[in-house]
Parts: sequence; C-alpha cells; structure tokens
Amino acid sequence: MATTVTAPRGMRDHLPADKARREHVLGVIRGVYARHGFDEIETPVLEDAARLHSGLGGDNEKLAFAVMKRGLTTEDLHRAEAPLELADLGLRFDLTVPLARFYASHRAELPTVFRAVQIAPVWRAERPQKGRYRQFVQCDIDVLGEPGQLAEIELIRATTAALDSLGIAGTSIRINDRRVLLALLASWGITDQAAADRALITVDKLDKIGPDGVAKELSESLDLDGAGLADTIRALESADWDSVRGAEWLDTDAFADLERLRAALPGVDLRFDPTLVRGMGYYTGTIFEVAHPDFGYSLGGGGRYDGMIGRFLGQDVPAVGFSLGFERLVDLVTLPDADADDAVVLVYDKDMDPVRLAALKTEALGSHHRVRLEKRTKNMKNLLAGLVEQGFGSFATVDADTTSLDGVVFRPLA
Amino acid sequence: MATTVTAPRGMRDHLPADKARREHVLGVIRGVYARHGFDEIETPVLEDAARLHSGLGGDNEKLAFAVMKRGLTTEDLHRAEAPLELADLGLRFDLTVPLARFYASHRAELPTVFRAVQIAPVWRAERPQKGRYRQFVQCDIDVLGEPGQLAEIELIRATTAALDSLGIAGTSIRINDRRVLLALLASWGITDQAAADRALITVDKLDKIGPDGVAKELSESLDLDGAGLADTIRALESADWDSVRGAEWLDTDAFADLERLRAALPGVDLRFDPTLVRGMGYYTGTIFEVAHPDFGYSLGGGGRYDGMIGRFLGQDVPAVGFSLGFERLVDLVTLPDADADDAVVLVYDKDMDPVRLAALKTEALGSHHRVRLEKRTKNMKNLLAGLVEQGFGSFATVDADTTSLDGVVFRPLA
Repeated sequence: MATTVTAPRGMRDHLPADKARREHVLGVIRGVYARHGFDEIETPVLEDAARLHSGLGGDNEKLAFAVMKRGLTTEDLHRAEAPLELADLGLRFDLTVPLARFYASHRAELPTVFRAVQIAPVWRAERPQKGRYRQFVQCDIDVLGEPGQLAEIELIRATTAALDSLGIAGTSIRINDRRVLLALLASWGITDQAAADRALITVDKLDKIGPDGVAKELSESLDLDGAGLADTIRALESADWDSVRGAEWLDTDAFADLERLRAALPGVDLRFDPTLVRGMGYYTGTIFEVAHPDFGYSLGGGGRYDGMIGRFLGQDVPAVGFSLGFERLVDLVTLPDADADDAVVLVYDKDMDPVRLAALKTEALGSHHRVRLEKRTKNMKNLLAGLVEQGFGSFATVDADTTSLDGVVFRPLA
Repeated sequence: MATTVTAPRGMRDHLPADKARREHVLGVIRGVYARHGFDEIETPVLEDAARLHSGLGGDNEKLAFAVMKRGLTTEDLHRAEAPLELADLGLRFDLTVPLARFYASHRAELPTVFRAVQIAPVWRAERPQKGRYRQFVQCDIDVLGEPGQLAEIELIRATTAALDSLGIAGTSIRINDRRVLLALLASWGITDQAAADRALITVDKLDKIGPDGVAKELSESLDLDGAGLADTIRALESADWDSVRGAEWLDTDAFADLERLRAALPGVDLRFDPTLVRGMGYYTGTIFEVAHPDFGYSLGGGGRYDGMIGRFLGQDVPAVGFSLGFERLVDLVTLPDADADDAVVLVYDKDMDPVRLAALKTEALGSHHRVRLEKRTKNMKNLLAGLVEQGFGSFATVDADTTSLDGVVFRPLA
C-alpha cells in the first residue's frame, strides 16, 4: 500500500504552519464581526437535496456534491431514471441558501433585524485549477430584516474594519446598484428582463474581454451599434462619482442612495463603478466588491438581495450580505510572531526517563506560554530550523542529570 | 413554500448563544493543546471512498455518507451492480482514518515525533436519537512516532489541562492495557484471537448488562462456569491499584507500565480499571477514558494503536490518541460573561437617519468592545432580555437629537 496517498482531487490538507495562519485569520475576522454587533451561527454542511436545488443558487446548484440515500439496493439503482433520484442530501455550495433555510427554521427565535456571521467551508464539484478548490472557506456577514441603508453601512464598515485588523492596506470598495445597471441598459434600448439578464452576463465579462469585446458581444446579440457602444463602455469604465453626475442615462434615485452611503462611510475608499455587475442573479439593489491595487481579483463582495431570503419562509425579507474571500486573504496575511519568545523547546536525550521529562515539561509550562519536547537528532540544524518555522523562540537541552530547570540556559533558536 | 423547514434529519443548526458557547470551548481546548506543544492540522471532510472503506474504521465504515460520482448517466446506474460503485468519495466518520492518510501523504514534511491536534466535524449515517447526531465535532490529539510512554503522559496531561481550563472539575481517568485484558481472558482459558475479540465485546457491555449479564454471555458462548465468573467480574469491577497487585491473572509487565504512568502524572486522578475495554479493535496497548461522577457516560477516551497509522504508509508507526467528546463538554460549560460590561447596545428610533446612526456606532466602538444597534420596539422588555442572553451588558437610547455620545447615559441591561 506504499503508493502515493493524497487528499481527494481539488481538496487540500493544511499542515501546522498553514493551519495556524488560517486560524489566526479566522480569529481576527470573527473578533471584528462580533465587535460590530454581528452574531455567529452555524448550519450543517449537508442540506436536503430539494432545498439545494430550489433555484436560489444559480449555476452553483449544478456543482453540489450529491450524497446518496442510505439503504439503496441494486434494484433501486436499476429502477432509477436519473442519478439525482438516488440522492437525498447534498453538500452546500454557498452559505446563502443555508442562511435562507436557517432563517425560515428559526425566524421566531431571532431578532427583528438579524445580523448573521457564517464562517464555514463550502464545496463545489468544479474542475480543479490553480487557486480554485473543491472545498474552501467563506466568511459571510448578512443583515436580514433591515430595508434601510443602515444594513449596507454596517456591513461595509465591519468588512473594512476586518481587513484593517488583518493588516491588509490599500483596499477600496467598488460600488454600484442594480437599478443603475438596468437604467443604463434601458438607455441602450434593452428593457426586456431576459435580454437584460443576458446583457448583464456580457457586461460582467468586462475585466476579461475588455470594452471592445463587451461591445461586440452586445451588438451581435442585441442589434446595437458596436463602435459607439465600445466608446461608451470605455468611458463608463473610468467613470467616478463626479464624472457621471447628471448623465442622462443615470438612475438618479439609485445614485443619490449611493452618494448617501458614501457620506455615511468616511475613511472608506468607496468608488462608484457603473460597470460592476457581480454574477448572481438574485441581487436587487446595492452591489459592492473589495478591490486591491496589487490584485486582479476581488477580495470579497456582496449586495442587496431582497427577494430571496423569504423564499423558504413564504414572505419577503429584506437582506444584504458581504462575503470575504477567505482563501485569498489567508495568502496575504503573515502570522504575528510576538508569541515566539515565550514558546520554548526542551531537547532531550533518547534514553531519558519519560517520568522525569514529563516533570520538566510541567515545570516549563509554569513559566512559558508554549512548550514542546523534541528528541535530540543527528541533524540538529534541521530540527531547530523547523521549530523556528513552527513559532518557537528558544530552546534548552536537558539530560538524565537535569532534575530541575533552575539554572538551565535557554538559547534563542533563530 | 411556507411549510416547516428544518435542518436535515439528525443534524443541528447552532443559534448565536449556542454557537458562542461552542466557539468558546473550541478556543479553550485549542489554546491548551497548542500550549502543550501540539500542532493543529486540517484535512478535507471528504476522503476517497476506497480509503474510508479500507478496514481501519471498524463498524463505523458502514456509517459513512457516500458522495456520488459526478457526471453519472442513467445507463451508469442501470449497469451498476451495487450502490457503492456509484460513489467515489465519502464523508469521514472519524478523524483517525484521515490522520493515517494525512501522515502517509506528508510524512517527509512532519517531525519524527508528530503531535497532532484535529478539531473538526465527522458524520455518521446513524439512526438519530437523543444526544446522538449525524454531524458532530471531535477533538483529537495524537502522538505519532513515539513508542515510549512519553506519548501517553503528554496526551493525558494535555487533556486533563484542557478539562481544567474549561472549569470541569472532578474528572478521573480510567486506565487499562489491552495486554492486561488479554492475560485476564487467557486466565479464563480464552487464548484464541477470534474468541478473545468476541469476549472483549461482551466485557465492553459491563456498564449496560452488569456482571451477571457479562458472565452469562461469556459462559454461554465460551463454555465457562457462569456463577464463579460473575463473582470474579464483580471483584474486578471494584478493583484498584492495590487490590490487583500480585493477582495471578495479572500481566505484570503491562501493570508495571501503568504504575509508571501513574507516577508520571501527579495530580491526575488515574484509576486502574481492568474491565475497561473501549470499542475499537485497533488498540494494542494502553487504553483510557475520562469519567465524571455526575455522568454515566465518558467525556472522552483513547489509547495506543501501534499497528494502524502505517497502513497507508506501508510501514508501522507507533501511535497513541486521546479524543474529547466535544458535544458533551459543550453542554457542561457556561460562557464567561466577563465581557458583558463592555458590550453596549444603542437603541434607536425607527426614523433615525442611518448616516447619523452609523457615526454613533463608530463613536461607541472607540470606547466599547462590542456594539449593537437595535431599533426601538413596542416590547422593549423582551428586546432587552434577549440582549442580556446575547452577552450585552448595558444600553443607551439615541434619537434624532443625539449628535454625539458625550453625556449619553448607559444603563445596565440586567
């Protein structure tokens, strides 16, 4: 059996240094969100298959891992008309569908305005590729039951505070409103909902195919003048608060709302971007995304989706959410090593009595924050270097004559 | 769609107060294990089906939720000869099989003696019943690569320290050794391995069926004198360190090892229990369990399983593990409310300007640890009582005239 043994395709093991960094980032985010008055909840990783496939998850529904019913017989397989008939549960592909289900299950026990935190893994049966995994963590905050802009303000404030606390500087928030987009499309003669949905999918590709690509695709499918459109999109791409004010195509109500958000968020670099779409079809109002000058991808995003949370409840509930891209953030954060000085290693001889050794460890725990026992090896250099990486700061050697740590010298590891 | 919507059968949602208590317990355990020199790792929740069903998981293998292959066609179903042919992945049913797989995958990157922490959910497709869930969290520590007793000492020391830090007093550790059990069975004439395995399953039921029940079952299947056996088992049940010393049936080497452990763990209430079996077949040496006088069930347990970790690696690796029953611990722990004084609520009027409100929240965050905005309701008593439960300590009311929190009076909530 000594063949190569690996984690399932597209999924990762986290070794100690990696896991420590992940837990550090989770702890910081969790702390900031609690501080800002949000409440953490947790739902099972599995949901009933019917709920996962209820149309709330868009294209992601197709990526749900399906869990087989228990107690199936071979006859059941042979009678089945489609694979999904054999599955009654599935792994969640996002945290929004479970939140909608949770809210419907527990509405009576929750406050009128519910500020939810969910920090948890999701699964997608996608083709694995660089930086894209089949299991990854999402950090979502959502405000349910608040129709006013207070929801957007609290979400954006808490998210930027979390990024600050992680030491990630220089981020800005791109912001737009679905109503701005729909008015823009209407100014191009696109008013039919299905045509608008298709056009938004095209505009959403702007980063990838550029203004000419978007104009070409729109003009082909919608019978518009391609050249003029490319110029318009180029102008929109570099638009800002001041350049669009008063433009004929602008939805002035929606824009006024965005300007009010800007006023409510001093210190946040909020940038109006009329070309920001965000993929999911369920957004109804404000949409936003975290941008960083060093990266071509966003570090998170969200928006208002008033129609959706109530789907399992049978009545509409206003909702806004902001999701941080945890896996991307982890790569940007370095673990603070303030604790290293107080994390010590006792290097011991192979034949040392374990009872004595255990007593020395207990003694060390009395005066140090973190204690590791390591057996002396031939390659001490390697061992000590590895310990530095694991966050230890100093070490001492002990042997059969060491009855106490009094007078034992701890030397720095690095 | 306004029908009853619940989490999948046998799985739970965790509401804010519950989730906060869970995170508190996890944080304490995680902190103590790190302090004692253990390294946390994480593996994907899914493992390849072949590894989950490789015989390392005992009866639990049958309880693995099976995840269907992607891209199956109806023809695939009709051609299949058994349900499991359609599954290539499964949800882990414990953390030991994933640890063995992880160790085989990353051996070269890990220290010679690897002290692992895993704190993560597992899934079992069991019939749900009170206190038994289909998704639950396990907290495992394992020492891999250490054949000596230092492994047991560090594990027991770290575990009892974690229980102490959680404020759970009065626990004791029942301890035994598989070698003691096998010598005991041999003294009854049971030497054949298969017969010994069956007999251990019977002895393991002692808590449930009592000495007479065990004696009856053993005497029936093994042709022994039932009455004499019941007396022997009754004596063993109340045995302790002193009463068994020198007994003819006793494996003196194994007992001497256990006495050495006892000497190495001053302050730990270590109780020798020759009837302790623990269910899993893979144990080879020391076995132990956390007992508490108030509960009929154990709070955790573990033992030495030298033959198993190397199964995926192709070479034996000594191993000992200790697993805490997280779900049971959570019920015993109350959340410290030391933070409540500094957690404040601003109760605001419905029509208040969100921009103003956001500014007041930011101001409050400057001097308080945790800030929540709550809209004034008709039933203020209910609202305030709910906030106490959520860990808030005081509140102030603000309205359209409140331009700053200077001079605003915060009143205690409780």
